[in-house]
Amino acid sequence: MTQDVDPGYLARLEARSGKLAGPTANVAPGRVQANLAILPRALAADFLHFCQLNPKPCPLLSMSEPGNPALPALGRDIDIRTDIPRYRVWRNGELVSEPTDVRDVWRDDLVSFLIGCSFSFEEAMLDNGLPVRHIEQGCNVPMYRTNIATQQAGVFGGPLVVSMRPLKAADAIRAIQVTSRFPSVHGAPVHLGDPGLIGIADIAKPDYGDAVQIRDGEIPVFWACGVTPQSVVTAVKPEFCITHAPGHMLVTDLLNSRMAVF
Amino acid sequence: MTQDVDPGYLARLEARSGKLAGPTANVAPGRVQANLAILPRALAADFLHFCQLNPKPCPLLSMSEPGNPALPALGRDIDIRTDIPRYRVWRNGELVSEPTDVRDVWRDDLVSFLIGCSFSFEEAMLDNGLPVRHIEQGCNVPMYRTNIATQQAGVFGGPLVVSMRPLKAADAIRAIQVTSRFPSVHGAPVHLGDPGLIGIADIAKPDYGDAVQIRDGEIPVFWACGVTPQSVVTAVKPEFCITHAPGHMLVTDLLNSRMAVF
Repeated sequence: MTQDVDPGYLARLEARSGKLAGPTANVAPGRVQANLAILPRALAADFLHFCQLNPKPCPLLSMSEPGNPALPALGRDIDIRTDIPRYRVWRNGELVSEPTDVRDVWRDDLVSFLIGCSFSFEEAMLDNGLPVRHIEQGCNVPMYRTNIATQQAGVFGGPLVVSMRPLKAADAIRAIQVTSRFPSVHGAPVHLGDPGLIGIADIAKPDYGDAVQIRDGEIPVFWACGVTPQSVVTAVKPEFCITHAPGHMLVTDLLNSRMAVF
Repeated sequence: MTQDVDPGYLARLEARSGKLAGPTANVAPGRVQANLAILPRALAADFLHFCQLNPKPCPLLSMSEPGNPALPALGRDIDIRTDIPRYRVWRNGELVSEPTDVRDVWRDDLVSFLIGCSFSFEEAMLDNGLPVRHIEQGCNVPMYRTNIATQQAGVFGGPLVVSMRPLKAADAIRAIQVTSRFPSVHGAPVHLGDPGLIGIADIAKPDYGDAVQIRDGEIPVFWACGVTPQSVVTAVKPEFCITHAPGHMLVTDLLNSRMAVF
């Protein structure tokens, strides 16, 4: 056995033990982090179809077997019931608890969906010397419901949610190049410029996260956001589901750099 | 010997015979076309350095030996003195003639520079279903002098000239992806959005070419333009130089599709 412990595995062990119960930004740099949606098997086929139809907001990294908490494609010895720092448990669309462990509510029919997260492409942006305003400002990324409809699959559907990062034009062009390399973690932006064209009435009032400063000469650039599947799932009000708490992601063993398609 | 004649070679033979004396848009589809600057050897090293420092406006496809009219890297049996449909001959910065053949003014010290042209990436845009407004409107692309300085090399320097194509945001994002694949034919845009940020006072009044319509919801997108080297060369007022007449390019044997870097 190797003595090396992957930083992703280490982060999961800390989440499992309760030592890591906060947001995972900057935890295990270089490792892919993932959004979580856990649904009863009865809804799993429709949700998988929804992800397949909407790969930009819902880039599916891995899906579990029903009842099985392992996700071998994403990392060593993952137990999805314990390895996320904080969960949200929902019953009939109501948030009922935010535990650090969901073993007590686990069921044999639960299917886990792990979906790519913008942390991966933001790391690539920073590596390219591009500014990421909400990181500079130490706040959450601003996110907005748009008038762009997702493709409906069974009960799942609703508006696309986007995240926004302001950039100067030349940086926006470079950001499009950089993020296009990462289709499995949201990929290229879906819009830039006039927010009104995608149904955003006031850029200073995000629907989720925090407003950030847009400076002179900067253009708002909008990416499909992993909050979309969460907003779609909770809108359906399933009798039971589990998501991660915002910003509290699954840290995997996968390398962000290996997500690049070229 | 093969019986196949490359469409690029055929176009050059027609230019050589005088049969083709007009613009080369839509001539030999799929073949790379090139901008021309012919300079005395005394200026060639500086101009080569200028191209090296400014690869976006001046993507050098090939440079000849002094006095040698052949360009074997660009196609079969090229004679740069006859194979362009129409030339411009300049003396001390003054345009003195627009002949279809420059054999009578040829000199043993002349060096030819062939520079990539936007026709290549426009073909890729059209292949991707992206609109190219000046083609739709049947006019020349609008071009603008900017306040972006090129990198000076010896006597050569001056403002970057850009071409503009209006696109909806999602199409602009796709156009950035598509044209990024073609760094040897200007590559990705250099700017998008507010023209004033790069010193363009009135988008309706291009410095070269024709104004085109910008429709509701469209953003002007700006690419580095092959008119830059021409404007730089003529500004220096060399005792002698030759360029192509606007739109009258060298048609090569190279395939546009082979210019893609991935």
